Amino acid sequence: MNPKHLEDLLTYLRFKSVSTDSECAGDVRKCADWLVEKLNRIGLRASLHETPRHPVVIAKNEHQPGRKTVLIYGHYDVQPAAMEDGWDTEPFEPVVDEDRGMIFARGATDNKGQNLAHILGMQESLEDGGLPPLNVTILLEGEEEIGSPNLEPFLREHRDELACDVVAVSDTGMVSPGMGTLTYGLRGIACLEFKVRGPSEDLHSGVFGGAVVNPATAAARLIGSLHGADWRVAIDGFYDRVEPLADWERKAWATLPGGEEETKSITGVGILDGEKGYTELEQRWARPTAEVNGMGSGYQGEGSKTIVPREAMAKLSFRLVPDQEPDEILELAEAHLKKHCPPGVDLEIERGHAGPPYVIDPNSDYGLAAQQALRETFGGELALIREGGSIPIVQSFKDILGADTLLLGLALPDCQIHAANENFYLESFTSGIKLNRVLLKELSC
Amino acid sequence: MNPKHLEDLLTYLRFKSVSTDSECAGDVRKCADWLVEKLNRIGLRASLHETPRHPVVIAKNEHQPGRKTVLIYGHYDVQPAAMEDGWDTEPFEPVVDEDRGMIFARGATDNKGQNLAHILGMQESLEDGGLPPLNVTILLEGEEEIGSPNLEPFLREHRDELACDVVAVSDTGMVSPGMGTLTYGLRGIACLEFKVRGPSEDLHSGVFGGAVVNPATAAARLIGSLHGADWRVAIDGFYDRVEPLADWERKAWATLPGGEEETKSITGVGILDGEKGYTELEQRWARPTAEVNGMGSGYQGEGSKTIVPREAMAKLSFRLVPDQEPDEILELAEAHLKKHCPPGVDLEIERGHAGPPYVIDPNSDYGLAAQQALRETFGGELALIREGGSIPIVQSFKDILGADTLLLGLALPDCQIHAANENFYLESFTSGIKLNRVLLKELSC
Repeated sequence: MNPKHLEDLLTYLRFKSVSTDSECAGDVRKCADWLVEKLNRIGLRASLHETPRHPVVIAKNEHQPGRKTVLIYGHYDVQPAAMEDGWDTEPFEPVVDEDRGMIFARGATDNKGQNLAHILGMQESLEDGGLPPLNVTILLEGEEEIGSPNLEPFLREHRDELACDVVAVSDTGMVSPGMGTLTYGLRGIACLEFKVRGPSEDLHSGVFGGAVVNPATAAARLIGSLHGADWRVAIDGFYDRVEPLADWERKAWATLPGGEEETKSITGVGILDGEKGYTELEQRWARPTAEVNGMGSGYQGEGSKTIVPREAMAKLSFRLVPDQEPDEILELAEAHLKKHCPPGVDLEIERGHAGPPYVIDPNSDYGLAAQQALRETFGGELALIREGGSIPIVQSFKDILGADTLLLGLALPDCQIHAANENFYLESFTSGIKLNRVLLKELSC
Repeated sequence: MNPKHLEDLLTYLRFKSVSTDSECAGDVRKCADWLVEKLNRIGLRASLHETPRHPVVIAKNEHQPGRKTVLIYGHYDVQPAAMEDGWDTEPFEPVVDEDRGMIFARGATDNKGQNLAHILGMQESLEDGGLPPLNVTILLEGEEEIGSPNLEPFLREHRDELACDVVAVSDTGMVSPGMGTLTYGLRGIACLEFKVRGPSEDLHSGVFGGAVVNPATAAARLIGSLHGADWRVAIDGFYDRVEPLADWERKAWATLPGGEEETKSITGVGILDGEKGYTELEQRWARPTAEVNGMGSGYQGEGSKTIVPREAMAKLSFRLVPDQEPDEILELAEAHLKKHCPPGVDLEIERGHAGPPYVIDPNSDYGLAAQQALRETFGGELALIREGGSIPIVQSFKDILGADTLLLGLALPDCQIHAANENFYLESFTSGIKLNRVLLKELSC
C-alpha cells in the first residue's frame, strides 16, 4: 500500500469527531477542516458548509453538462469511545497491527476508512490520467451518528448543487472477506428516551418502601412489556405495515457464508435468541426490533444504598423494516408506554432521531453497474443482501434528489463498529480504493 | 441550648464517615478517634477497638457489681451523600437554620445527632452530681450503613465486656413532633446484587439487534417479575412465614397522627400504592417488600448510542417482617431470578448484607420503664409502633447478649434520612439529652 494513504488514514482517525458529545465539537470541526484541505489538495474543489451543529464538506471535480453525476456520500463523525468501554488501545490513537493486517481505532470502519478509500481512489485516478467522464460530488457530513438532523434541510437548500443521477455509499458490510457485497436494503430507526419520576428525592427504602411505587421497578416493567415471551415486540400495531420477506431473499440468504456460528463467535454469545420463525440473518436484516440501549436508576456505585430511587431512565431504539414509518412507530411506542406505566409515578418521553427503512431493486441499471464493479474488484461470487443498520439519509437522497443509493460496503463481520476495538482490514482499505476507481468507470459507461 | 453541645454536634457532623465508600476510610477513623477523646473527656473510660474494617468505640462508667447494666448503642457512620443528589447545602458542612430550629447535614438524625444526645445526657448527669446507680456501656460502631458485618463477631468476642441487662438505641422515629414513641418492632433486610451478562462487548444494535438477547431487557424482565400487578411480591414462598398483624396493632395505628397525606407530602408522591389490603402505615411497618435500590446498563450519557449493551446490573433489597428469615428469603429470591432469567444471557448473583426482623413486648418491665421516661420527657400520649427500617444488630443483642433493645428514637417524619437535605430539629436534640437522663434514672430503679 502507498504509505501516504496509510498516513492519511492515521491522521483522519486521530480526530475525536464524536458528534453526540458537545465537548468534542471543536474536534469535529478540525476533522472537517482537514477534509477540505485534503480534497482541495488532490485537485477537487472542496468547501465547508455550516449547519446548526456540525459542518458539511462538499467537493467536486469540474462538472460538465451531458455527463452523468454520481454523489459519493460518507460521514466523518464517529460513535463515542473510551478506554473503560473495554478498548485494548486508545480509541483515538490508531494502532496498526502489521501481523494481522488491521488498524484499530474508533471510526476505522465506520466510516472514515471507507470514505477515505473513495477519496484516495479519486486521488489515484486524478494522478493517473484523470477521472472517467463523469461528474462527481463528494458529500461528507458530521452528524450521521446522531441521526443526521441537519443534513435533510441541507439537501433541500442545496438541491441544485447536489443534483445527481445516483448515489454511492460505502458504510455497510461484506458478508465475508473478499466477497463483494451489494446491500439493497437497510433497516430504519426510531429512538426515544423515557424517564419515570417518583418521589421528589431518593427515599429510605425501610421507612417508605412498600407504600411508594419504585420508579426503577416501574421502568423495568415498561421495558419488560416491550416483548412477549417469544421475543416478538408486544406493542399494538407494531407489525401492521411489515412486508413479509420474499422467497428469493430467504433462499439466497440461506446459502451465504457466516450465519449463526459466526455471529456467536463475533458477539461472544452462547445462545442466540430472537423472534421465533426467522433465521438469525432474517432477524438481523429484515425483521424489526425494540432494543434498550441504556437504562439507569438509583445507586450504581460500590456497596449498597438502600433507597427507593427518585427516578429511572431508559434509552430505547426501534429498528424498522419496509414499510414501517418511524413517526407512527414512535406514536405506537408512546401509547404503549403510557398504557403500561403504573399509577404513582410520572412518565416523560422524549423522541430522538429517526429514519425510515430502505430498499431498492438490485437489478436496475445502476445496480448492475455496481455488481460489475464489485466483480472486477473482488472476483468470484457476489452477495446481494439487506442489512440491519440504519442510514436514514439514503431515504432523503431518494426523496429530495430523486436518486437511488448503491451501498457498496467494506465492513467485515468482526470490525466492531459502535463497539470497543473497532478495526479495519488494510486489505479492505486497498480494495475500497480500487472499488472507487472501477465503480466510477462502470458508472461513466 | 448549651452552645458547647451544638459545637460538639457540628464537629461530629463534619466527619465524612461514609462506611460504604473505601475512599472515606480515613474520615471514618478520624470520627471514631474524636468520639474516644470526647467520651474520655466527659469522665468515661473510652477506647477504640479494631475490626477488619471500621473501628468500634466502647465507653463505660465505673461498673459496680449488683447494679443493672444498660448498653447504649449507636453508629457514627453515615450514608453516602453528594451535592448532585439534590442537597441545598454541602452534606458534610452542617448548616444551622435558626428560624426553623433545624440543622442540615448527612448524619444529623441518622445517627450522629441521636447518639450524641445520649453522650451529652451522660455528660450533664456527670457534671450534675453523677449518674444514677447503674452500669452504663456505650457502644458506637462504624459499619451500620453497610449492615454491621463485623459487629456480630465483635459482640461474640467481647461478650463479657459488653454483658448487659437491656440495650437502649435511639435510631428510630417519633410519629410526630413532641409525641414520645417506643418502637417495639423493626423490619429485617436482605440485599443482593445481580448482573446479567450477554455479548462480550457492546454490540451495534442495527447489525446484531434482533438475534441477541439484550441484557438490559433481561434484567428489566427479572425486576418486573418480582411483583404481581397488585404489588404483592411474586417470589414463591416469600410470604410463607409472615405473621399477620395483631388486631390491637391495626387499631392503635389507625389512630396515630400523620398517615397517607403526611407520607405524600414528605415523599412528594401524588399517589401512594403498595400491597393491596393494607394501610400505608401497615405497608411500611409490618409488610415485607422487594425494592430496586439501583440499576444500570449501557449508555446513560448525553444523546444516543445505539448499542445492545454487554451487561446490566441491579441492586435489590428485601425488607422482612417476623418470622421471615433473611437467608431463606435470599435463597427464594435467587431461585426466582434463575427461573425467570431468559436463555441467551448469564446471570450472576452476589448476596449483600442481611438482618432478621425484630419484635419485643412493649409492656415488659424495661418496656414500661422506657414508656415512663418518654412520658417524663415529652408529656402527653405515647405511641407504640413498629418501623419499616432495619437495625439488624438488635437481633444480635438478643442472640449474643440475651438483652432486649428499647428503641427510643428522635427522628421526625421529614428528617430525610438516607436522602438529600437530611436534618435534625434542635428541639429533638435537647429532648434526646433529657431523655437519656430520665431513662437512666428509670432504669436504675
